[in-house]
Amino acid sequence: MEEAVKDQNNEKEKQDKEMYDEELLIRALRQEDLDLFRSEFTQLHSYDQAKFFSKVEDELRTRLYHYLSPEEMAELFESLDIDEEDYQEILAEMNPSYAAEMLSNMYADDAVDVLNELDKEQVVSYLTIMDDESAKEIKELLHYEEYTAGSIMTTEFVAISQNQTVRSAMYILKNEAPNAETIYYIYVVDDDKKLVGVISLRDLIISHDDVMISEIMSERVMSVGVSEDQEAVARQMKDYDFLALPVVDFQHHLLGIITVDDIMDVMEEEASDDYSKLAGIADLDSIDRNPFNAAKKRLPWLIALLFLGMITANLIGRFEATLDKVAILAVFIPLIAGMAGNTGTQALAVAVRGIATGDLEKENKLSLVLREAGTGLITGTTCGIVVSLIVYVWKGTFFLGMLVGVSVFISLFVATLAGTLVPLFMHKLKVDPAVASGPFITTINDIISTLIYLGLATLFLNYLI
Amino acid sequence: MEEAVKDQNNEKEKQDKEMYDEELLIRALRQEDLDLFRSEFTQLHSYDQAKFFSKVEDELRTRLYHYLSPEEMAELFESLDIDEEDYQEILAEMNPSYAAEMLSNMYADDAVDVLNELDKEQVVSYLTIMDDESAKEIKELLHYEEYTAGSIMTTEFVAISQNQTVRSAMYILKNEAPNAETIYYIYVVDDDKKLVGVISLRDLIISHDDVMISEIMSERVMSVGVSEDQEAVARQMKDYDFLALPVVDFQHHLLGIITVDDIMDVMEEEASDDYSKLAGIADLDSIDRNPFNAAKKRLPWLIALLFLGMITANLIGRFEATLDKVAILAVFIPLIAGMAGNTGTQALAVAVRGIATGDLEKENKLSLVLREAGTGLITGTTCGIVVSLIVYVWKGTFFLGMLVGVSVFISLFVATLAGTLVPLFMHKLKVDPAVASGPFITTINDIISTLIYLGLATLFLNYLI
Repeated sequence: MEEAVKDQNNEKEKQDKEMYDEELLIRALRQEDLDLFRSEFTQLHSYDQAKFFSKVEDELRTRLYHYLSPEEMAELFESLDIDEEDYQEILAEMNPSYAAEMLSNMYADDAVDVLNELDKEQVVSYLTIMDDESAKEIKELLHYEEYTAGSIMTTEFVAISQNQTVRSAMYILKNEAPNAETIYYIYVVDDDKKLVGVISLRDLIISHDDVMISEIMSERVMSVGVSEDQEAVARQMKDYDFLALPVVDFQHHLLGIITVDDIMDVMEEEASDDYSKLAGIADLDSIDRNPFNAAKKRLPWLIALLFLGMITANLIGRFEATLDKVAILAVFIPLIAGMAGNTGTQALAVAVRGIATGDLEKENKLSLVLREAGTGLITGTTCGIVVSLIVYVWKGTFFLGMLVGVSVFISLFVATLAGTLVPLFMHKLKVDPAVASGPFITTINDIISTLIYLGLATLFLNYLI
Repeated sequence: MEEAVKDQNNEKEKQDKEMYDEELLIRALRQEDLDLFRSEFTQLHSYDQAKFFSKVEDELRTRLYHYLSPEEMAELFESLDIDEEDYQEILAEMNPSYAAEMLSNMYADDAVDVLNELDKEQVVSYLTIMDDESAKEIKELLHYEEYTAGSIMTTEFVAISQNQTVRSAMYILKNEAPNAETIYYIYVVDDDKKLVGVISLRDLIISHDDVMISEIMSERVMSVGVSEDQEAVARQMKDYDFLALPVVDFQHHLLGIITVDDIMDVMEEEASDDYSKLAGIADLDSIDRNPFNAAKKRLPWLIALLFLGMITANLIGRFEATLDKVAILAVFIPLIAGMAGNTGTQALAVAVRGIATGDLEKENKLSLVLREAGTGLITGTTCGIVVSLIVYVWKGTFFLGMLVGVSVFISLFVATLAGTLVPLFMHKLKVDPAVASGPFITTINDIISTLIYLGLATLFLNYLI
């Protein structure tokens, strides 16, 4: 068994190495050995090519533009995952006509992603050099707003008419296969280019050649509106296990399709978005090598929270007289504030996720608020009682135990509600609810809970002295 | 334009309604109108069927087992997304032979997901009633550990030999299409059932009928080991834009395939996992209707943190004498603890994400630590200076400003390092680093920062009075 596991690891390593021999490629580039380089490089999956491209030093990279055709570079670029601001620099390294030809060879949706990072002037100049058909396709897509279905769809799909036989549909398919982004779903349109049905390649190949498309197509074809949010599209695709979804305009004309690989990118993007906002970081996409860049992403939140924290300090300052008389009160401030911050974050996470996954669209928002109020009462009561007992046993003063316990109870209840209501309210105002990030809610709840605690203490000061 | 947008919304609503007429279905069930119900229900996508199934009341649900065949129920079950503990109850409602037939009609990987929620005895009894072939397939899959490639793969795939023509491969494909989970990649095996190549249906249909498979197949086929972590598999599939990946044992025998729809579920599961742990909730999968359930998921963290918080209180208690002399010190405790908590969470999020996405495997861990130390120095210096100035201007005491500023500086530096080192250390110990959740790191950093602040204050007490 031990032996077997080791074998498996060896196998794995060998495989990884075979997949991608970086040193060999670099050597070939350095020695300007075009044949060796091409014979190795063109065998690689475009993802590995792109990984190599983004890793290699600048001087060798520019050599690639001579070693690879614009078509080959297009495929590499479709898999490229670099920082948005780097596209400009890299395209500037290329000969403009090479760059234009590369862009026209990319799937239109991927080309648009690249062009969106450039200056308007540059975009126009590339579109002018490009062949007319590609330029037209790209111009259409450039119109759609970011994060909508239109912005992630591709116009390279296969559409057929319903008055065709399976044989003629297969004929069309074979011709269009090299250019279409997917051929596993074929969409059926009427004379007006309106979407009327869908058929999978699977159903097509098991049908008899002479059957009419209208007989075997499914008329219950799901589609998304071109201006729909990409997150909603991703959800639909995941729920229904589709490999592609058609995109239509308001008159149900077929405009494009969205394929599952784009959706996986959207899912990762949105998840990382929610996550980084819960942590209070502007953007967590990649691990920066540079501490200044990292600090730049974190400082906006930290400074904002510092000012919020100053408000807390100011408010506590008003209770200085109370604190002066009973110094032990200060001992429990971090505990109460911390507990309130934690419950608030929990409630926030549930609400933000509920909004993001669309679960909250279906159910009544009031029921969520009531549910959370109930949860806050339960957690508040439990923690309040536990804390009362501990403080009473520890300090031996019944009243201090009561005070801390009641403060925890009220704070947890209010903090849970705040964690729910703030994101719901922001969603209502069409602000991204994840902006109400974890640190923000935590700091708000610090303020509320400290006020509750010191307010109660001041009110009942006589019992404490 | 306004008009157009409105039209689009109407279109959207109409479409949603057409997709799914819940009331009609419920009415048909109540009136025991089998024909009406079936004519509507069998038209629905299995995801909508499953949604209806999990929503309808118990009494009507049991009626469904008589209205739908085990095959139809199998398809519905594949799309069902209910709480794990509910499967037991629902299967108990069915006639055992109906349940067994349904399970044998499901894709083996989905059937295994259901069976994994049941008692061992129940599983055995279903497997006994089931037809032998299905039982065998399911038994094989039941062996694999959860969260590995083996646990999410399916054994229903199409494999062909390389010594075949395209024509005969297409023939096999047409026969197996109804049972295979995907036919868009066809795997090529040698006589020993070892994986030697892959060909896409796309390449198959554009090739001439008489070409040999060995000529057109790709020999650079990527595969994953059966015991590989599902998250690593998901990453590979997303990076390379595959629709399916073959799973092999250590001798490279083809065991099964993993399809993209399963991977999307894995991606969502893992993202929601990281997210809920950052928020300190046991499990955030679904929005509970019941506040007691919600409280049950949150209380373990809250109680644990309460005890940690008590440690903080105890530590602060040791500085009671200091606080007694300079009550204003208490004013800045929440500010400093809050800032430390926030930076710690930011650093934690970066480290946990880096571990989860595998980015950290490639780069040196020491370089992350050094980078984070640098980030901590920068954010600490910036926030420290800002806070010093504010406190100095506000309170007019230079020394208090210095004290708070220096405390913020040290706290932020230490908290950033703690947020990085704790998850790295847990990863080293093979503990899921996300267990070092946001609230946990926050509370740890509360303790550290309060100690730094009050320690410094006590040391320099003479300057403060």
